[in-house]
Amino acid sequence: MNNNLYEHGTLAMLMAGKLSGTITLAELLKHGEHGIGTLDGLDGEVIILDNEVYQADETGTVNRITDMDATLPFASVHHAMNETTLTLPKADFNILNDTIVKEHNFKNVFVATRFHGVFEAVKVRVAPKQTRPYPGLLEIASNQPIFEKQNVSGTVIGYFAPELFGTVTAGGWHLHFLSDDRQFGGHLLDFVGTNLTGTYQIFDSLEQHFPVSDPEFRAYDIDLASLQADIQAAEGH
Amino acid sequence: MNNNLYEHGTLAMLMAGKLSGTITLAELLKHGEHGIGTLDGLDGEVIILDNEVYQADETGTVNRITDMDATLPFASVHHAMNETTLTLPKADFNILNDTIVKEHNFKNVFVATRFHGVFEAVKVRVAPKQTRPYPGLLEIASNQPIFEKQNVSGTVIGYFAPELFGTVTAGGWHLHFLSDDRQFGGHLLDFVGTNLTGTYQIFDSLEQHFPVSDPEFRAYDIDLASLQADIQAAEGH
Repeated sequence: MNNNLYEHGTLAMLMAGKLSGTITLAELLKHGEHGIGTLDGLDGEVIILDNEVYQADETGTVNRITDMDATLPFASVHHAMNETTLTLPKADFNILNDTIVKEHNFKNVFVATRFHGVFEAVKVRVAPKQTRPYPGLLEIASNQPIFEKQNVSGTVIGYFAPELFGTVTAGGWHLHFLSDDRQFGGHLLDFVGTNLTGTYQIFDSLEQHFPVSDPEFRAYDIDLASLQADIQAAEGH
Repeated sequence: MNNNLYEHGTLAMLMAGKLSGTITLAELLKHGEHGIGTLDGLDGEVIILDNEVYQADETGTVNRITDMDATLPFASVHHAMNETTLTLPKADFNILNDTIVKEHNFKNVFVATRFHGVFEAVKVRVAPKQTRPYPGLLEIASNQPIFEKQNVSGTVIGYFAPELFGTVTAGGWHLHFLSDDRQFGGHLLDFVGTNLTGTYQIFDSLEQHFPVSDPEFRAYDIDLASLQADIQAAEGH
């Protein structure tokens, strides 16, 4: 077992509207029992904790996914190992960016994090399922449901990626949230938490997996010149 | 054994002058018996064929490297598998770019190639060994020895990388040459060959490995805004 971040698909691919699922959940889970992703057609936000797979959907509902034939266009998973304890007396994105990244010198490496506790406020967005012909992520991003909750107990899970990889995957933090009661979750836009505890794990490698047998993947075009700006517009936290 | 391209270090790192060796040859060869790279301090052009390691140095000499403790800042290797035969009645960079990439639809995938035969003309450059404080690749590129040879029998080995990864590694073709008599080699700048035969191999994944324990790697800064243009100026083929 390697200390690798396994990623299937690329952010560039989603930006270009290549949204069809190209890896099964069964195959994905071979590469990690923790992770995040989205289902076929950009259907919601996937959270994987200890091999349990959840999907926050666009209605604000969280579903347990047990169909191992379900497919994903984009997902990141890892095996928990070499973890270091992370204690966050107070946490929000500013603290993650300014304190945690700098203190632990994350900027040039891929890192997983997972932390748990009571959150005073959590704001998430959920990707709404698309139908063919698929639009690109930039178009979808302007019209995504946002959900908020106060005083919610839950887990933040996700990754930090170096800026250099900010077109291959989401640069900086890419985090999802799932409440302890499995009723609330999504792609983390904003949060405030106190006395959170968890772990981080610095990866030796990024294992970037491609759907090489998928004709649509082989044929898709990207405009590198506009990609960076489009991602900035589409993503943010 | 996975059908992965294993890459240690990044092109961005070299551009920023992070040139010290961070993986041993012994460790590198665990991940592939074929590949290319450069030695500690950007010392020459490494060619690995069937576990035999050669270095073309800045004097135009080719050395066999048997010291498994030698280190490399940047290298790409793979295990030969799933290979497809490649026949090139005539070959040069235009044919590789215009015919081969398009015919086999390589643009979005990582590919290895290896082809052999008599080359009418071969033009190579060789990175000259640097000393600390290391300059960046852009500065070094303006002053690199170039060698040419006619009617030479040898092997071209290297990789095609999608444009999206053109700051992580060299985008497009990155090829090295080694003559059959092991007397001539380097980083391929130009070539003409006829009736060449070889193979190509499409990878499922890029396994991008980082020297995460190296303080210089953890600390180095890149200017993403200028990186693309600097690489263009420094690289070419």
